[in-house]
Amino acid sequence: MELPVLINTIRLALESDALYELREQFEDIHPADLAAAFSEFEPQSVWELLSTLPRAEQAEVFGYLPPETQVTLAISISRRKLSPIIRQMSSDERADLFNRLTEEQQETLLPALAQAEREDLRLLSSYEEGTAGAVMTSDYASLAPDLTVREAIEVLRKEAPDKETIYQSYVVDKERRLIGVISLKELILAPVGMQIHELMTYEPIFGQVDMPQEEVSVLISKYDLLALPIVNQDMQLVGIVTYDDAMDVAAEEATEDFHKTATIGKLDSSVKDAAINLLYRKRVGWLVLLVFGNLFSGAGIAYYEETISSYLVLLFFLPLLIASSGNAGAQSGTLMVRALATGDVALKDWGWMLGREVIIASLLGVTMALAVASIGWWRGGYDIALVVAATMTLVVIAGSLVGMSLPFLLSRFNMDPATASGPLITSIADVSGVMIYFSIATWYLGLQ
Amino acid sequence: MELPVLINTIRLALESDALYELREQFEDIHPADLAAAFSEFEPQSVWELLSTLPRAEQAEVFGYLPPETQVTLAISISRRKLSPIIRQMSSDERADLFNRLTEEQQETLLPALAQAEREDLRLLSSYEEGTAGAVMTSDYASLAPDLTVREAIEVLRKEAPDKETIYQSYVVDKERRLIGVISLKELILAPVGMQIHELMTYEPIFGQVDMPQEEVSVLISKYDLLALPIVNQDMQLVGIVTYDDAMDVAAEEATEDFHKTATIGKLDSSVKDAAINLLYRKRVGWLVLLVFGNLFSGAGIAYYEETISSYLVLLFFLPLLIASSGNAGAQSGTLMVRALATGDVALKDWGWMLGREVIIASLLGVTMALAVASIGWWRGGYDIALVVAATMTLVVIAGSLVGMSLPFLLSRFNMDPATASGPLITSIADVSGVMIYFSIATWYLGLQ
Repeated sequence: MELPVLINTIRLALESDALYELREQFEDIHPADLAAAFSEFEPQSVWELLSTLPRAEQAEVFGYLPPETQVTLAISISRRKLSPIIRQMSSDERADLFNRLTEEQQETLLPALAQAEREDLRLLSSYEEGTAGAVMTSDYASLAPDLTVREAIEVLRKEAPDKETIYQSYVVDKERRLIGVISLKELILAPVGMQIHELMTYEPIFGQVDMPQEEVSVLISKYDLLALPIVNQDMQLVGIVTYDDAMDVAAEEATEDFHKTATIGKLDSSVKDAAINLLYRKRVGWLVLLVFGNLFSGAGIAYYEETISSYLVLLFFLPLLIASSGNAGAQSGTLMVRALATGDVALKDWGWMLGREVIIASLLGVTMALAVASIGWWRGGYDIALVVAATMTLVVIAGSLVGMSLPFLLSRFNMDPATASGPLITSIADVSGVMIYFSIATWYLGLQ
Repeated sequence: MELPVLINTIRLALESDALYELREQFEDIHPADLAAAFSEFEPQSVWELLSTLPRAEQAEVFGYLPPETQVTLAISISRRKLSPIIRQMSSDERADLFNRLTEEQQETLLPALAQAEREDLRLLSSYEEGTAGAVMTSDYASLAPDLTVREAIEVLRKEAPDKETIYQSYVVDKERRLIGVISLKELILAPVGMQIHELMTYEPIFGQVDMPQEEVSVLISKYDLLALPIVNQDMQLVGIVTYDDAMDVAAEEATEDFHKTATIGKLDSSVKDAAINLLYRKRVGWLVLLVFGNLFSGAGIAYYEETISSYLVLLFFLPLLIASSGNAGAQSGTLMVRALATGDVALKDWGWMLGREVIIASLLGVTMALAVASIGWWRGGYDIALVVAATMTLVVIAGSLVGMSLPFLLSRFNMDPATASGPLITSIADVSGVMIYFSIATWYLGLQ
């Protein structure tokens, strides 16, 4: 069913108080689609809608709702009705919701949970945002190394409903240290009497709890994993990050990096729904900062006022030259920022990349110098053509080198290379463009 | 083992002709890591290294090698040695390799394959690049609806070694039309005598062969799928796209969009390894095009030469004003491009987004006008302050609206919104900035 149709069906049922009719219609609809439809309604109606579903599916649909809606719902209902759903949610989603509540709301929620769940929740919400610990779930399947295949499958069968995945099981020793990994596929193919330690993969790929989330998704993607086991400092297994959460992390990171390239601060909600004053605040900071950066370009122009007033034709080429410097810089900056983010290029590659960039930028500069030389000739004759062409070559090289080096420098000092955004590079390239242009012009035209 | 250590171990073994010693060391190393190490060596050595591995793992490691390396290897070896590996590769990887070979090389390869594989390969390589068909694999597990759970598990056990995944099985009718989906978890939990059609999910989420790859990864990510079944026009199942391939697609798309925001053409290889002339070609086109775009800004300045020569102080503010217009435009453009790419915002939201943008841009414009008014006063007195502040407000609004509308317009005409890059928006914003600035200045200062 298309989303608008579904929403309309629900609206009609709500209006005619015929919710029971929905039960059957909801049956073959994916929880993600139900959540998308539900989130169009008022909290009170969402609770009524959820109650038409089986308990396990209620938690699943609840987990697909936007985080802000989850909070609104959680605080709009009695603890007695909320707790069964909270208890059915996966541990990472529960911790996510918990972290978004006020301390007071958290206190109300905690007693509704069983002792074990409370401890789990306290542990999961104690990890710093942006780390593997904050995104992992503790609903993983673990096996002892001396189980037989038959016993292992029996364990998984029993635990399946409460586990995020049973397709990968993690083998731990008596101290819960991670010693191996085995897939359900391997278990199904193996003779039932064989022991886990004879079958499992030793030295599995794993992550540390304090590892940045981006690194988790890079590992999952590089090794095509279903889930990455996460260990603490003592190599004890504390959770797993599943591929679907890793996909979400990768998409969020990409969006954040995208926004940074245009000097936009981190947005937690969608652009469409974000409050106007939030968007204003996320955008105004750098815009004002860059204004002051551009004062230097203005000062550069003011410094060469004399040359300019004698050769007003130089102004014709000003936008074109500084824009070219900025554009070339934005290109090399973006190439580097993305390559650093995907792990394609590392800090140690700076020398190699810089050498190549000098060659590429020179080729680009000369090409563009040829393109503008004829225009220079037409507007101002031989001398102007020469000045413009020489400037173009140099500013394209200067801009490219700024664009390439800035991300590396930021990375070197443990700052996010994505801060080396187009606008920042453009501003720096502008200043150097103005200075190069007018100093060449003053010097060369002064010789005449 | 760390990559440099692994490479060194291999180098030593190759030099002392002691490859057999590597066999044991390779045992617990992930195929992706082996591939990363192998790709540092000459084709001849890579073949020797591959031969130390079991046949199935040879194909897996081969699949992890960079595409160019795969081609180099494939054409450097006899058909007799190549074909067993090719046959073991998954069908999507095989089709990928095949598409990168020349027609002549393809002809050499084909006879080495069994009839069924040949047909499969011809089919998979016939889909257009960028579609679901081009990235899907035909190594999926399918079941008939009247099988019992016991029979189904037996089928999966037999087929497991040749299938990309057995965790999701697709249920097809006699005409191979997709009618349902069932997970291995559901099979394992169900009573062994039950029939598949009693257990399966009807109306599963699916994709069409000609669907763009990005939409496939959006579906997989939205519904947290392990794989998306792909059907042809007659609803017959023809393949699946697995989550790991979807992750790769999403990462490639993000990189492509990133590069587009800085007017860089599509790069198929990594920035680090790309040939210098390739990078030159991918960058030069737009740079030169934008030069001509910036001629309009130059012409604008030339048109107002009289005003400028009377009020040279106006030049001081030129870089700052046009940069602010471009920066605000880059912000709103980037927000829109990304929101359109992730499906956060659709074409129909233009009106709503435009209305909000007018408010946000006005707020930004006034803030920035206040920031520059005092500088205007200091450099040129009351009149200049007024002209600069009014211009700032207007250019920030103009730039923002250009930045917001361009991605929608491109999308409306079925062009990629990511083409509405920072540099393109900046160039358009520059021209309007110049015109607004000097026409306000000429008009207002002419009144004095």
